[in-house]
Amino acid sequence: MVNETHDPAARSWVASANQSGADFPIQNLPLGAFRRTAAEQPRAGMAIGDRVLDLESCGAWDGPLHALMASPATQRAALRLAVFRLLRDDATPSTRARVEQALLPLDAVTMVMPAPIGDFTDFFGSIHHASRAVELMRPGAPLFESYRSMPLAYHGRSSSIVVSGTDVRRPRGQRRRREGGAAYEPTRRLDYEAELGIFAGPGNDLGSPIAIGDAWAHVVGVCLLNDWSARDIQAWESDPLGPFLGKSFATTVSPWVVTAEALAPYRVAAAPRGDDAPPLPDYLCSADDAALGAMAIEVEVAILTSAMRTAGDAPHRLSLSNAATLYWTSAQLVTHQTSNGCNLRPGDLLGSGTLSGIDRTTWACLLELTRGGREPITLPSGESRAFLEDGDEIVIRGRASAPGAPGLGLGECRGRVVAA
Amino acid sequence: MVNETHDPAARSWVASANQSGADFPIQNLPLGAFRRTAAEQPRAGMAIGDRVLDLESCGAWDGPLHALMASPATQRAALRLAVFRLLRDDATPSTRARVEQALLPLDAVTMVMPAPIGDFTDFFGSIHHASRAVELMRPGAPLFESYRSMPLAYHGRSSSIVVSGTDVRRPRGQRRRREGGAAYEPTRRLDYEAELGIFAGPGNDLGSPIAIGDAWAHVVGVCLLNDWSARDIQAWESDPLGPFLGKSFATTVSPWVVTAEALAPYRVAAAPRGDDAPPLPDYLCSADDAALGAMAIEVEVAILTSAMRTAGDAPHRLSLSNAATLYWTSAQLVTHQTSNGCNLRPGDLLGSGTLSGIDRTTWACLLELTRGGREPITLPSGESRAFLEDGDEIVIRGRASAPGAPGLGLGECRGRVVAA
Repeated sequence: MVNETHDPAARSWVASANQSGADFPIQNLPLGAFRRTAAEQPRAGMAIGDRVLDLESCGAWDGPLHALMASPATQRAALRLAVFRLLRDDATPSTRARVEQALLPLDAVTMVMPAPIGDFTDFFGSIHHASRAVELMRPGAPLFESYRSMPLAYHGRSSSIVVSGTDVRRPRGQRRRREGGAAYEPTRRLDYEAELGIFAGPGNDLGSPIAIGDAWAHVVGVCLLNDWSARDIQAWESDPLGPFLGKSFATTVSPWVVTAEALAPYRVAAAPRGDDAPPLPDYLCSADDAALGAMAIEVEVAILTSAMRTAGDAPHRLSLSNAATLYWTSAQLVTHQTSNGCNLRPGDLLGSGTLSGIDRTTWACLLELTRGGREPITLPSGESRAFLEDGDEIVIRGRASAPGAPGLGLGECRGRVVAA
Repeated sequence: MVNETHDPAARSWVASANQSGADFPIQNLPLGAFRRTAAEQPRAGMAIGDRVLDLESCGAWDGPLHALMASPATQRAALRLAVFRLLRDDATPSTRARVEQALLPLDAVTMVMPAPIGDFTDFFGSIHHASRAVELMRPGAPLFESYRSMPLAYHGRSSSIVVSGTDVRRPRGQRRRREGGAAYEPTRRLDYEAELGIFAGPGNDLGSPIAIGDAWAHVVGVCLLNDWSARDIQAWESDPLGPFLGKSFATTVSPWVVTAEALAPYRVAAAPRGDDAPPLPDYLCSADDAALGAMAIEVEVAILTSAMRTAGDAPHRLSLSNAATLYWTSAQLVTHQTSNGCNLRPGDLLGSGTLSGIDRTTWACLLELTRGGREPITLPSGESRAFLEDGDEIVIRGRASAPGAPGLGLGECRGRVVAA
């Protein structure tokens, strides 16, 4: 499915799109929703360089982004191609003049949620993260029995998903008291988890699973996601029904949805299942998916504390991991989610799970980095952290890379912790 | 909060509303959404006897039911009072003539979902159900450690919630194989769970919990709910993240939302917490809630098999339980749900959990009635059931009763299993 829109030599007449390492070159064209004023309804846009293209103003799409997510993959591809040609440096002067009036500086608009999210599912896609979770939760126990047979997941909370830049209030909640019973107070073990978020569309009818060969047609694209977690609340409440209030106080997503089509050149082989893995049921198997089901997207997590902000320091990197190390592919998540007939609707969101790899430099949450809080990390500012403190900001960035391809950025997913 | 609209002596000029034992007397006035034709948008209505009152046609409410759920409790109360007076037998002939043209026979309209549901949470509110679940899952183990400290729950799936009368397709899914690994095939252990569903509105801002004293203002009303469950899928997938595909294939709700205000005369003391229960954190405590936080609603589950349908038999009662036996009150569910700052939105749905009591006659799912399928039950038709078979229809009915009050029905929640 690589086509004209993936041409690594293509350049845009929007000069900022052509800078080396730009998040939004002409080969990206991610989808987002924005407002020009606080009063207006969200508008559908695409990012190009340091600009947002207003899709309605340029005549490319007349409706909300949500409706575009509901459209078939072929229609989304046609829109991408049309916009690509409008923005390429060989556009005629008259086209360019027409499109120019539909471009706004990114810093002049307010990004909002790409879509109203009907349902949010959070998967547990990294076997490395899952294995370390077992070590911390159940020392000496084997990996969860069904882990390598299916992508494990829980239903998440849609209402509390917020867009990058929204402050996150430290939640109150119940934690187990050493002396018995429970206390209700601000969490003492606030954590982040860096993930990818997959926006679904157009989706399936209730009762009709999506076959693995069709799954990518139901992936609109990918964003960055911070699955904020209160570990003390989570530990006390999770038996036997799983995570609930320890997660539902906030989930942050980056505003730009990098489309499945834009990511085509960055697809790589799925991670090996392991020689001793149980046989995989047929519905999750596909030779194409094994060969090209993963995405080479590097994800960096950085922290900016209040003291660092005051001192003018840059955020400090906590981890750099790669989504290609996930045990389960995006197609497997979509197919498994619908394998019981459950329906996906346009704008539904699937979290990949914490993007932790093998090495310590890839551990994408504090639970792993501090061994459950027992081994605090020291920052260059001299501060130490077992878990997050008020004023700490977590900044997640992502970039797809592949040999011979220009590379694409996913933008930023930021959130700052404010006091309970 | 008992007022003129609860007067047990009040009668309506709609004769069918005055029949003894009617679900929808003038003291009920439940909210529902309906269509007169397949093409039109859902309309807001109230049930009265065997009729539905079109709220827009009679001038009482101009908008979707969803918007009414978003309005403050005082506005919903004012609407209830206004409609009550329109329908009471002392209405003037001109009022009656005007309202009569806004009444439609219930069997001439199609009931649809009362609201687009943003988030669905399923609680585990019956300690009797939870205790038997432990017996079956972990023989000899104590009750879940946090059970009596907080209302345990998991996030459910919104997209697959359907209205009463919708067929339920038997889901396929993974189950553990005795010989190791997993099979993917139609569930062999399909079950129902009878619950109440609580529709929320207007809800709270993210970061601002709802205090227990304010919780009822955020309960629009109550419906019946069938939390269909595939026990084999559920058992294999639930460690450690809780129920997922074993539940998300379908949840059925009854179409009429019996309002919190209509239920005021049926409020009773909350079930005792138990002398050895741990101290309850303050945010879940309220003397008013302890005194009047439960609802005296009897819920009956009946089954109609294909053979019974062919023979013209009536549905056979499987259980009759009472929501007043729940360990957690509706106010505690609302308050706990928002205690971490999580926001409720109008139309969000909270399931009470399976309404099982102590006695076998009150066990509200097959898992309990058949001891995990090991002791099939025999029906009057001579058939036996360990779990549900294709063609089986589950019919849940509910009725609120109290001394000196006329009683209210919740209507019906029906769903028939169709082959995978």
